[in-house]
Amino acid sequence: MADYIEGKRPVLEALRTNVPIKCILIADNVKKDSLIEDVLRKAKRFGVQVKTVSRKRLDDLSERGSHQGLMAETRPFEYVNVTSILEAAENSAKEHEGRALVVLLDHITDAGNLGAIARSAESVGAAGLIIPNKRAAHVTAATYKSSAGAISHIPVSQVANLTQTIERLKEAGFWVAGASEHAQDYIWQSNLKGKIALVMGNEGEGISRLVMDSCDFLVKLPQIGEVSSLNVAQASTACMYEWLRQNF
Amino acid sequence: MADYIEGKRPVLEALRTNVPIKCILIADNVKKDSLIEDVLRKAKRFGVQVKTVSRKRLDDLSERGSHQGLMAETRPFEYVNVTSILEAAENSAKEHEGRALVVLLDHITDAGNLGAIARSAESVGAAGLIIPNKRAAHVTAATYKSSAGAISHIPVSQVANLTQTIERLKEAGFWVAGASEHAQDYIWQSNLKGKIALVMGNEGEGISRLVMDSCDFLVKLPQIGEVSSLNVAQASTACMYEWLRQNF
Repeated sequence: MADYIEGKRPVLEALRTNVPIKCILIADNVKKDSLIEDVLRKAKRFGVQVKTVSRKRLDDLSERGSHQGLMAETRPFEYVNVTSILEAAENSAKEHEGRALVVLLDHITDAGNLGAIARSAESVGAAGLIIPNKRAAHVTAATYKSSAGAISHIPVSQVANLTQTIERLKEAGFWVAGASEHAQDYIWQSNLKGKIALVMGNEGEGISRLVMDSCDFLVKLPQIGEVSSLNVAQASTACMYEWLRQNF
Repeated sequence: MADYIEGKRPVLEALRTNVPIKCILIADNVKKDSLIEDVLRKAKRFGVQVKTVSRKRLDDLSERGSHQGLMAETRPFEYVNVTSILEAAENSAKEHEGRALVVLLDHITDAGNLGAIARSAESVGAAGLIIPNKRAAHVTAATYKSSAGAISHIPVSQVANLTQTIERLKEAGFWVAGASEHAQDYIWQSNLKGKIALVMGNEGEGISRLVMDSCDFLVKLPQIGEVSSLNVAQASTACMYEWLRQNF
């Protein structure tokens, strides 16, 4: 997550969507308009500390030069390790007659999609999300917004190597299903009972060859229309609910 | 749809997402920067007429005062009447062993959601979307963007009265399923075979009481997480794919 959020509206939005904020920095010479008043009111209500600093200090911290006399320092998002997600999955399996879902995102690049997927994953009771630690969207203030806050309620792990993580999931008893238009079977024809790791690919190119090769099987959703390109977040939602249907 | 799109980036975005554009208006004293050059290049490629007008003319047409010397006049979105959608549904039923889907949106207010739902509806081969003609999102340039252009490939009808339209769908042999958290049955337990009209409710309040009363039955998706509020576009997608699964 970016360490600082700059500007009146972005800070207000961050407060509204429960982005974890360490403190708010306000320039000593700022003109207190209605947006600033709103920020101060919300900060007080949520118990967020407000520090008055020189405008020079904000200028120094600002990356984009758009602070308008107001910035928020965020707490870093607390990623978990894969072991925690495996434990959460075991708990899910114990509580829900063997079912558990872990969702792996193979280099999703849009923070909005990451948030939307997190929201649906939380909604079906997934044990966690696993994302790459490079060349992929990570949890930012935008993710809080697009997940409607659900990102705070689902464990997310960042890993260096997705294929190694897939091997680890297999050892832990997961069947690994990759969503791909190259699949032979529609998702409804596949057995998604029990512990499933669902792999969703990048917006442009789908799942990479290496990751695809390490999946146990591939699944696809029929796309019947003329345009036929379901957004990855929509496709993820349909796949996750199919997993839930088979395990309900 | 708004008649005019204002400003360089919005006009460029409209060209990129295939918003139907009647002509582009450019101020005679505009400074031709790289964005303007890009707009002119795209306009030429797509065969869109470019008219040079006085800046005063743009000021007069502008609603938001943000035209930057560039506006686009859009063609109105061509809504169809309900009869056309019923005909498309009959064709779908003939071609696909009796299956047909019509989606009714009970006062969805967010243009982004309307676009996302249109995209998924097109993807499952729905015969059309029916939306209210008041107090609801209608098709704008934003809908082209959020539907990734799919809105051009699915018939949309605007109606004055949703409950009357529901009666008409019933007379045409549709079963009307309302998505509501008040449903007793999960969607998987409901029979969605054949000709189904799926009613999705407003972002905040869901389906209105009057519309709910006119549905044949209600369905819901389980929401297992702690936050548990699936976005209406995500919920629509899961419901539409469940219809397709039962009819595939």
